Amino acid sequence: MQLIPIGIIHSPFQQAQGTPVQPFSARDIRGSVEVFAPFLPGLNDLEGFERIWLLFWCDRASAAELLVTPYRDRVKRGLFATRAPARPNPIGISVVRLLEIRENTLQVAELDILDGTPLLDIKPYVPQYDSYPTARCGWLDADNIDKGTLTADSRFEAGPQKPSS
Amino acid sequence: MQLIPIGIIHSPFQQAQGTPVQPFSARDIRGSVEVFAPFLPGLNDLEGFERIWLLFWCDRASAAELLVTPYRDRVKRGLFATRAPARPNPIGISVVRLLEIRENTLQVAELDILDGTPLLDIKPYVPQYDSYPTARCGWLDADNIDKGTLTADSRFEAGPQKPSS
Repeated sequence: MQLIPIGIIHSPFQQAQGTPVQPFSARDIRGSVEVFAPFLPGLNDLEGFERIWLLFWCDRASAAELLVTPYRDRVKRGLFATRAPARPNPIGISVVRLLEIRENTLQVAELDILDGTPLLDIKPYVPQYDSYPTARCGWLDADNIDKGTLTADSRFEAGPQKPSS
Repeated sequence: MQLIPIGIIHSPFQQAQGTPVQPFSARDIRGSVEVFAPFLPGLNDLEGFERIWLLFWCDRASAAELLVTPYRDRVKRGLFATRAPARPNPIGISVVRLLEIRENTLQVAELDILDGTPLLDIKPYVPQYDSYPTARCGWLDADNIDKGTLTADSRFEAGPQKPSS
Protein backbone atom coordinates (compact mmCIF):
# COMPACT_ATOMS: atom_id res chain seq x y z
CA MET A 1 0.00 0.00 0.00
CA GLN A 2 2.25 2.69 -1.38
CA LEU A 3 0.99 6.17 -2.20
CA ILE A 4 2.08 8.53 -4.93
CA PRO A 5 1.59 12.30 -4.89
CA ILE A 6 -0.76 13.40 -7.68
CA GLY A 7 -0.26 17.08 -6.94
CA ILE A 8 0.52 19.66 -4.31
CA ILE A 9 -1.63 22.02 -2.25
CA HIS A 10 -0.72 25.71 -2.05
CA SER A 11 -2.06 27.69 0.91
CA PRO A 12 -1.15 30.69 3.08
CA PHE A 13 -0.17 28.40 6.00
CA GLN A 14 3.46 27.47 6.58
CA GLN A 15 2.99 25.79 9.94
CA ALA A 16 0.21 24.35 12.07
CA GLN A 17 0.19 27.33 14.45
CA GLY A 18 -2.59 29.62 13.20
CA THR A 19 -3.92 27.27 10.52
CA PRO A 20 -7.71 26.91 10.59
CA VAL A 21 -9.03 23.75 12.19
CA GLN A 22 -11.39 22.39 9.53
CA PRO A 23 -12.92 24.30 6.60
CA PHE A 24 -15.68 25.86 8.77
CA SER A 25 -12.93 27.95 10.38
CA ALA A 26 -11.50 28.93 7.01
CA ARG A 27 -14.37 30.66 5.21
CA ASP A 28 -12.26 33.42 3.67
CA ILE A 29 -9.13 31.41 3.01
CA ARG A 30 -8.17 30.82 -0.59
CA GLY A 31 -5.49 28.68 -2.09
CA SER A 32 -4.83 26.45 -5.03
CA VAL A 33 -4.36 22.82 -5.87
CA GLU A 34 -1.76 21.97 -8.50
CA VAL A 35 -2.44 18.62 -10.16
CA PHE A 36 0.59 17.07 -11.82
CA ALA A 37 0.43 17.00 -15.64
CA PRO A 38 -0.02 13.24 -16.15
CA PHE A 39 -3.30 13.35 -14.21
CA LEU A 40 -4.81 16.30 -16.10
CA PRO A 41 -7.46 14.30 -18.05
CA GLY A 42 -8.91 13.13 -14.75
CA LEU A 43 -10.08 16.70 -14.03
CA ASN A 44 -12.68 16.63 -16.83
CA ASP A 45 -16.24 17.29 -15.59
CA LEU A 46 -15.03 18.41 -12.17
CA GLU A 47 -15.88 22.09 -12.64
CA GLY A 48 -19.63 21.43 -12.23
CA PHE A 49 -19.13 20.50 -8.59
CA GLU A 50 -19.50 23.21 -5.96
CA ARG A 51 -17.39 21.34 -3.45
CA ILE A 52 -14.70 18.69 -3.68
CA TRP A 53 -12.95 16.36 -1.28
CA LEU A 54 -9.22 16.75 -1.07
CA LEU A 55 -7.36 13.73 0.31
CA PHE A 56 -3.86 14.64 1.39
CA TRP A 57 -0.85 13.34 3.26
CA CYS A 58 -0.26 15.19 6.54
CA ASP A 59 3.48 15.24 5.95
CA ARG A 60 4.32 17.41 8.96
CA ALA A 61 2.23 15.55 11.52
CA SER A 62 4.00 14.11 14.54
CA ALA A 63 3.94 10.40 15.34
CA ALA A 64 0.48 9.10 16.14
CA GLU A 65 -0.65 8.78 19.74
CA LEU A 66 -3.83 6.83 20.45
CA LEU A 67 -5.13 9.23 23.11
CA VAL A 68 -5.01 12.93 22.28
CA THR A 69 -6.40 16.20 23.55
CA PRO A 70 -8.25 17.61 20.54
CA TYR A 71 -8.31 21.33 19.75
CA ARG A 72 -11.95 21.67 20.79
CA ASP A 73 -11.78 19.94 24.16
CA ARG A 74 -9.59 19.77 27.26
CA VAL A 75 -9.56 16.05 27.99
CA LYS A 76 -7.91 13.12 26.24
CA ARG A 77 -10.03 11.37 23.64
CA GLY A 78 -9.50 8.25 21.58
CA LEU A 79 -7.66 9.28 18.41
CA PHE A 80 -10.28 7.75 16.09
CA ALA A 81 -12.96 9.88 17.77
CA THR A 82 -11.01 12.99 16.71
CA ARG A 83 -9.83 14.52 13.45
CA ALA A 84 -6.28 15.12 14.71
CA PRO A 85 -3.75 14.88 11.85
CA ALA A 86 -1.22 12.68 13.68
CA ARG A 87 -2.64 9.22 12.86
CA PRO A 88 -1.28 5.73 12.04
CA ASN A 89 -2.04 6.63 8.40
CA PRO A 90 -1.90 10.44 8.36
CA ILE A 91 -4.45 10.94 5.59
CA GLY A 92 -6.48 14.14 5.82
CA ILE A 93 -9.86 14.67 4.20
CA SER A 94 -11.28 18.17 3.69
CA VAL A 95 -14.29 19.49 1.79
CA VAL A 96 -13.22 22.68 0.03
CA ARG A 97 -15.20 24.97 -2.23
CA LEU A 98 -14.16 24.81 -5.88
CA LEU A 99 -13.94 28.24 -7.49
CA GLU A 100 -12.28 27.69 -10.85
CA ILE A 101 -10.14 25.27 -12.83
CA ARG A 102 -7.49 26.53 -15.26
CA GLU A 103 -5.48 23.79 -16.91
CA ASN A 104 -3.97 21.82 -14.03
CA THR A 105 -4.66 24.35 -11.26
CA LEU A 106 -7.78 24.45 -9.10
CA GLN A 107 -8.61 27.63 -7.24
CA VAL A 108 -10.31 26.71 -3.98
CA ALA A 109 -11.74 28.38 -0.87
CA GLU A 110 -12.25 27.29 2.76
CA LEU A 111 -8.82 25.73 2.85
CA ASP A 112 -7.46 24.38 6.14
CA ILE A 113 -4.34 22.66 4.80
CA LEU A 114 -0.63 23.47 5.15
CA ASP A 115 1.26 24.88 2.16
CA GLY A 116 3.14 22.24 0.21
CA THR A 117 1.02 19.30 1.40
CA PRO A 118 1.08 16.32 -1.01
CA LEU A 119 -2.25 15.72 -2.73
CA LEU A 120 -3.40 12.08 -2.85
CA ASP A 121 -6.83 12.26 -4.42
CA ILE A 122 -9.70 14.51 -5.46
CA LYS A 123 -13.29 13.27 -5.25
CA PRO A 124 -16.51 15.14 -6.03
CA TYR A 125 -18.58 16.10 -2.99
CA VAL A 126 -21.97 14.44 -3.45
CA PRO A 127 -24.63 15.32 -0.85
CA GLN A 128 -26.42 12.01 -1.42
CA TYR A 129 -23.24 10.17 -0.37
CA ASP A 130 -21.67 12.56 2.08
CA SER A 131 -24.23 14.77 3.80
CA TYR A 132 -25.87 13.73 7.08
CA PRO A 133 -26.79 17.10 8.61
CA THR A 134 -28.21 15.80 11.86
CA ALA A 135 -25.81 12.99 12.74
CA ARG A 136 -25.20 12.85 16.47
CA CYS A 137 -21.57 13.47 17.28
CA GLY A 138 -20.45 12.31 20.68
CA TRP A 139 -18.12 14.53 22.67
CA LEU A 140 -18.47 17.25 20.03
CA ASP A 141 -22.14 17.67 20.97
CA ALA A 142 -21.29 18.60 24.56
CA ASP A 143 -22.08 22.13 25.70
CA ASN A 144 -18.61 22.80 27.05
CA ILE A 145 -16.60 22.30 23.89
CA ASP A 146 -15.27 25.20 21.91
CA LYS A 147 -17.84 25.84 19.16
CA GLY A 148 -16.23 28.90 17.61
CA THR A 149 -13.77 29.50 14.81
CA LEU A 150 -10.56 27.78 15.72
CA THR A 151 -6.98 27.70 14.62
CA ALA A 152 -4.43 25.02 15.28
CA ASP A 153 -1.30 25.05 17.40
CA SER A 154 1.78 22.86 17.23
CA ARG A 155 0.49 19.95 19.32
CA PHE A 156 0.26 17.52 16.39
CA GLU A 157 3.19 18.90 14.41
CA ALA A 158 6.58 17.21 14.03
CA GLY A 159 9.85 19.11 14.15
CA PRO A 160 11.53 21.83 16.19
CA GLN A 161 8.32 23.83 16.75
CA LYS A 162 6.89 21.03 18.86
CA PRO A 163 7.33 21.42 22.61
CA SER A 164 8.93 18.33 24.12
CA SER A 165 6.36 16.36 26.08
CA MET B 1 4.09 7.63 2.01
CA GLN B 2 3.61 4.07 3.12
CA LEU B 3 0.35 2.85 4.60
CA ILE B 4 -0.25 0.24 7.26
CA PRO B 5 -3.50 -1.67 7.78
CA ILE B 6 -5.05 -0.83 11.13
CA GLY B 7 -7.83 -3.37 10.75
CA ILE B 8 -10.02 -5.26 8.32
CA ILE B 9 -13.58 -4.77 7.10
CA HIS B 10 -16.01 -7.71 7.13
CA SER B 11 -19.02 -7.50 4.80
CA PRO B 12 -21.35 -9.80 2.84
CA PHE B 13 -19.68 -8.84 -0.46
CA GLN B 14 -16.99 -11.07 -1.99
CA GLN B 15 -16.75 -9.28 -5.33
CA ALA B 16 -17.70 -5.98 -6.88
CA GLN B 17 -20.60 -7.49 -8.84
CA GLY B 18 -23.70 -6.86 -6.72
CA THR B 19 -21.99 -4.69 -4.09
CA PRO B 20 -23.91 -1.49 -3.32
CA VAL B 21 -22.57 1.67 -4.93
CA GLN B 22 -22.24 4.02 -1.96
CA PRO B 23 -23.95 3.72 1.44
CA PHE B 24 -27.25 5.20 0.18
CA SER B 25 -27.69 1.95 -1.78
CA ALA B 26 -26.85 -0.17 1.26
CA ARG B 27 -29.44 0.84 3.88
CA ASP B 28 -30.01 -2.70 5.19
CA ILE B 29 -26.48 -4.00 4.85
CA ARG B 30 -24.63 -4.80 8.05
CA GLY B 31 -21.07 -5.78 8.63
CA SER B 32 -18.24 -5.28 11.05
CA VAL B 33 -14.93 -3.53 11.33
CA GLU B 34 -12.16 -5.35 13.16
CA VAL B 35 -9.54 -2.98 14.53
CA PHE B 36 -6.18 -4.60 15.25
CA ALA B 37 -5.34 -4.86 18.95
CA PRO B 38 -2.51 -2.29 19.13
CA PHE B 39 -4.94 0.44 18.03
CA LEU B 40 -7.68 -0.38 20.56
CA PRO B 41 -7.18 2.67 22.84
CA GLY B 42 -7.87 4.90 19.84
CA LEU B 43 -11.52 3.74 19.82
CA ASN B 44 -12.30 5.49 23.14
CA ASP B 45 -15.16 8.02 22.83
CA LEU B 46 -16.14 6.79 19.38
CA GLU B 47 -19.41 5.18 20.46
CA GLY B 48 -21.14 8.55 20.87
CA PHE B 49 -20.97 9.16 17.14
CA GLU B 50 -23.92 8.11 14.99
CA ARG B 51 -21.82 7.89 11.85
CA ILE B 52 -18.15 7.36 11.14
CA TRP B 53 -15.87 7.68 8.15
CA LEU B 54 -14.07 4.53 7.12
CA LEU B 55 -10.98 5.07 5.00
CA PHE B 56 -9.93 1.90 3.25
CA TRP B 57 -7.63 0.55 0.59
CA CYS B 58 -9.49 -0.66 -2.49
CA ASP B 59 -7.25 -3.70 -2.80
CA ARG B 60 -9.16 -5.33 -5.65
CA ALA B 61 -9.51 -2.26 -7.84
CA SER B 62 -8.06 -2.41 -11.33
CA ALA B 63 -5.37 -0.01 -12.53
CA ALA B 64 -6.53 3.60 -12.65
CA GLU B 65 -7.76 5.09 -15.91
CA LEU B 66 -8.22 8.85 -16.08
CA LEU B 67 -11.48 8.73 -18.05
CA VAL B 68 -14.11 6.28 -16.85
CA THR B 69 -17.78 5.53 -17.37
CA PRO B 70 -19.24 5.77 -13.86
CA TYR B 71 -22.02 3.46 -12.68
CA ARG B 72 -24.63 6.23 -12.78
CA ASP B 73 -23.94 7.55 -16.28
CA ARG B 74 -23.26 6.28 -19.79
CA VAL B 75 -20.51 8.61 -20.93
CA LYS B 76 -16.85 8.90 -19.97
CA ARG B 77 -16.10 11.32 -17.16
CA GLY B 78 -12.87 12.57 -15.66
CA LEU B 79 -11.86 10.13 -12.92
CA PHE B 80 -11.63 12.85 -10.24
CA ALA B 81 -15.25 13.85 -10.99
CA THR B 82 -16.31 10.30 -10.07
CA ARG B 83 -16.08 8.07 -7.02
CA ALA B 84 -14.80 5.06 -9.00
CA PRO B 85 -12.49 2.90 -6.84
CA ALA B 86 -9.74 2.46 -9.46
CA ARG B 87 -7.66 5.58 -8.75
CA PRO B 88 -3.95 6.54 -8.67
CA ASN B 89 -4.21 6.17 -4.87
CA PRO B 90 -7.12 3.73 -4.41
CA ILE B 91 -8.34 5.11 -1.08
CA GLY B 92 -12.07 4.77 -0.47
CA ILE B 93 -14.06 6.92 1.94
CA SER B 94 -17.51 5.84 3.17
CA VAL B 95 -19.82 7.17 5.86
CA VAL B 96 -21.29 4.19 7.68
CA ARG B 97 -23.71 4.07 10.59
CA LEU B 98 -22.12 2.94 13.85
CA LEU B 99 -24.32 0.49 15.77
CA GLU B 100 -22.15 -0.87 18.57
CA ILE B 101 -18.55 -1.30 19.69
CA ARG B 102 -17.44 -4.42 21.57
CA GLU B 103 -13.76 -4.52 22.37
CA ASN B 104 -12.02 -4.17 19.01
CA THR B 105 -15.05 -4.85 16.79
CA LEU B 106 -17.42 -2.21 15.44
CA GLN B 107 -20.84 -3.30 14.19
CA VAL B 108 -21.85 -1.02 11.34
CA ALA B 109 -24.71 -0.56 8.87
CA GLU B 110 -24.99 0.93 5.36
CA LEU B 111 -21.82 -0.79 4.29
CA ASP B 112 -20.76 -0.66 0.63
CA ILE B 113 -17.29 -2.21 0.99
CA LEU B 114 -15.87 -5.58 -0.11
CA ASP B 115 -15.22 -8.26 2.51
CA GLY B 116 -11.59 -8.36 3.63
CA THR B 117 -10.78 -4.78 2.65
CA PRO B 118 -7.84 -3.28 4.60
CA LEU B 119 -8.88 -0.50 6.97
CA LEU B 120 -6.66 2.61 6.94
CA ASP B 121 -8.41 5.01 9.29
CA ILE B 122 -11.59 5.77 11.21
CA LYS B 123 -12.72 9.37 11.70
CA PRO B 124 -15.85 10.66 13.41
CA TYR B 125 -18.51 12.05 11.08
CA VAL B 126 -19.05 15.67 12.12
CA PRO B 127 -21.88 17.52 10.33
CA GLN B 128 -20.16 20.87 10.91
CA TYR B 129 -17.14 19.63 8.95
CA ASP B 130 -18.68 17.23 6.48
CA SER B 131 -22.30 18.09 5.69
CA TYR B 132 -23.18 20.38 2.77
CA PRO B 133 -26.71 19.23 1.91
CA THR B 134 -27.27 21.52 -1.05
CA ALA B 135 -23.91 21.46 -2.79
CA ARG B 136 -24.31 21.51 -6.56
CA CYS B 137 -22.89 18.37 -8.10
CA GLY B 138 -22.13 18.58 -11.79
CA TRP B 139 -23.00 15.64 -14.01
CA LEU B 140 -24.71 13.94 -11.04
CA ASP B 141 -27.38 16.68 -11.06
CA ALA B 142 -28.46 15.87 -14.61
CA ASP B 143 -31.94 14.46 -15.13
CA ASN B 144 -30.79 11.50 -17.16
CA ILE B 145 -28.50 9.84 -14.62
CA ASP B 146 -29.57 6.80 -12.71
CA LYS B 147 -30.90 8.11 -9.38
CA GLY B 148 -32.00 4.81 -7.88
CA THR B 149 -30.41 2.19 -5.69
CA LEU B 150 -27.43 0.82 -7.53
CA THR B 151 -25.06 -2.09 -7.29
CA ALA B 152 -21.62 -2.35 -8.84
CA ASP B 153 -20.37 -4.59 -11.61
CA SER B 154 -16.83 -5.71 -12.41
CA ARG B 155 -15.79 -2.67 -14.47
CA PHE B 156 -13.32 -1.35 -11.87
CA GLU B 157 -12.24 -4.71 -10.48
CA ALA B 158 -8.88 -6.38 -11.12
CA GLY B 159 -8.53 -10.09 -11.78
CA PRO B 160 -10.20 -12.80 -13.85
CA GLN B 161 -13.74 -11.40 -13.43
CA LYS B 162 -12.84 -8.32 -15.43
CA PRO B 163 -13.76 -8.46 -19.12
CA SER B 164 -10.77 -7.64 -21.31
CA SER B 165 -11.17 -4.20 -22.80
